[in-house]
Amino acid sequence: MSQQPPLPAQMRAVVIHEYCDGFRHLKSEQRPVPHPVGDQVLVRVAAAPINPSDLLFVQGRYAFRKELPVVPGFEGAGTVVAVGEDLDPDAYIGRRVAAFAADGDGSWAEYMLVTASTCIPVNDQTDDEQAAMRLINPLTAWAILDMARQRGQRAVVQSAAAGSLGQMIYRLGQRWGIEVINVVRREEQRQTLQALGAKHIFDSSEPSFLMDLRERCAALEAVMAFDSVAGALTGQLLRALPPGGEVVVQGGLSGDPIEIEVNQLVYLNKRVSGFWLSTWIRDPERVLVAYRDTQGDLRDVFTTKVHKRHSLQHPVGALSEYAVSMSDGKILFVPDQPSN
Amino acid sequence: MSQQPPLPAQMRAVVIHEYCDGFRHLKSEQRPVPHPVGDQVLVRVAAAPINPSDLLFVQGRYAFRKELPVVPGFEGAGTVVAVGEDLDPDAYIGRRVAAFAADGDGSWAEYMLVTASTCIPVNDQTDDEQAAMRLINPLTAWAILDMARQRGQRAVVQSAAAGSLGQMIYRLGQRWGIEVINVVRREEQRQTLQALGAKHIFDSSEPSFLMDLRERCAALEAVMAFDSVAGALTGQLLRALPPGGEVVVQGGLSGDPIEIEVNQLVYLNKRVSGFWLSTWIRDPERVLVAYRDTQGDLRDVFTTKVHKRHSLQHPVGALSEYAVSMSDGKILFVPDQPSN
Repeated sequence: MSQQPPLPAQMRAVVIHEYCDGFRHLKSEQRPVPHPVGDQVLVRVAAAPINPSDLLFVQGRYAFRKELPVVPGFEGAGTVVAVGEDLDPDAYIGRRVAAFAADGDGSWAEYMLVTASTCIPVNDQTDDEQAAMRLINPLTAWAILDMARQRGQRAVVQSAAAGSLGQMIYRLGQRWGIEVINVVRREEQRQTLQALGAKHIFDSSEPSFLMDLRERCAALEAVMAFDSVAGALTGQLLRALPPGGEVVVQGGLSGDPIEIEVNQLVYLNKRVSGFWLSTWIRDPERVLVAYRDTQGDLRDVFTTKVHKRHSLQHPVGALSEYAVSMSDGKILFVPDQPSN
Repeated sequence: MSQQPPLPAQMRAVVIHEYCDGFRHLKSEQRPVPHPVGDQVLVRVAAAPINPSDLLFVQGRYAFRKELPVVPGFEGAGTVVAVGEDLDPDAYIGRRVAAFAADGDGSWAEYMLVTASTCIPVNDQTDDEQAAMRLINPLTAWAILDMARQRGQRAVVQSAAAGSLGQMIYRLGQRWGIEVINVVRREEQRQTLQALGAKHIFDSSEPSFLMDLRERCAALEAVMAFDSVAGALTGQLLRALPPGGEVVVQGGLSGDPIEIEVNQLVYLNKRVSGFWLSTWIRDPERVLVAYRDTQGDLRDVFTTKVHKRHSLQHPVGALSEYAVSMSDGKILFVPDQPSN
């Protein structure tokens, strides 16, 4: 049986004591290092990203709230350093893992506590930083494009195409032989995608956007669109799709409610639905298939650009920066990072 | 071979020469009686209703426009008086039929021309006026509730519940053992439904509407709502349904675009789709099953209240009246009606 190494009593963590707009309520605090019990493992966090869902969560606008005070951060990666009494330490201690923090305290801390069954082993080809970002975006990209693949689609539309998730979906489409029609909101986002070699790019701020997109959808027989912007754009995507088309909404970056025309649903037999990773991952079998892909043959597809690393000292700056620069790559909390 | 009786050269018809808002552009005119060719039959119209889709059509706001000038009216019933050269007159002349007028001139005339395959024989238990209203609303009610039945639903929600279609859906639900949760917009509509014996009635103008409706949906496990109002109500119906719920939009009486919350789709796995009879009737097999039902065992379910009969002389008044009194019953054009 492995020796469980001694752990410090205190750790640095990002903490919120209330849910409110903006990010000024995020604190950097000293907290007791938690002790794993039962089937829990304690992970020394090597890196933990800021995702769009975190921005919503800390402002109380996500699907659920956790009991306060709480450490935010829905995913992270690191090394198992202690286990609860139900687990064999030999099977866990020293293992590199990635983990979701669905309940309780999250990943923006030096240590995080998770149940063993939610940990996914990280292989040698995947470094800590990439491992930390290998759950939410990669599994979302995989799940979304798999939906299209299951329905035999050869082309799909996506909005927010220049973001981390959008780029992943584009690259995965290349590998799976699915043409991705990319919708962006600004000229520089078009350039980001052009640099990747994307052929189908449409800027929703251009006057001919709807007509151009509709023509391309018809030409490529694209009947599904994946939308993470919502607001009026959802209605535009729906209008651009041919009869029978479906927009799958998976985020609301615009912050606006969805607006759609009655005629699109009634006369043209179109539909609007939603996708949420938390619903999708309830089926463990497909999660394992997907995760194996993201670490194996497809791992280059899921490599995410790191825009910046932050220590746990200045969370307000880190989140504020991410909120205005999502297309530039991920911002990571790296506990060992020298304070910045 | 039956003698085809001599026909008059001219007939009275309602005609539009342009598509524009309101009803003042509807004319009552003399037109040549058309001659059936090929597989067409000529029907002497006994009665033809005004439906919500007609109001949209004459204003150019329906799914499609027909070439102008055109006789409006999507359905009607009467007696076959002449047939084209491909048809055996013995099989048709003198037969009472109901018919859709999908293409070309419609039913608001003394005579209408339709292809034989779109005529549905009317049985002796069904009078001309009821036969004239036995297609659009009855088949819509049947198709919609059949969707719920196919999915094993024991309870469904519907908006505009006090209208002709809504009452039909309520009565059909009674026969099929499906609880119908009725949403209305005004107190007198509640009374209309109470008079039918409806138990579940919710007025969307009341402050506790959403909470009350949500509770009832949960209690009765209703996960489907059929909406013919659109606008903000679609979003409210979606919010009232439990996770996984679906709103099927089949009309836009409010005239407003649909507004829905992102969270309802993403986190709660709900969806919004549409229903259009013109799409549904492309499957002739289920149309025949449904139509047999509407004339047979279920014919009392589909009996529609006639609010008023108009000759073909004053279409402006007839449509204006219908537009403000839909809940009072149908307004029919009856060519033999003494001029009013």
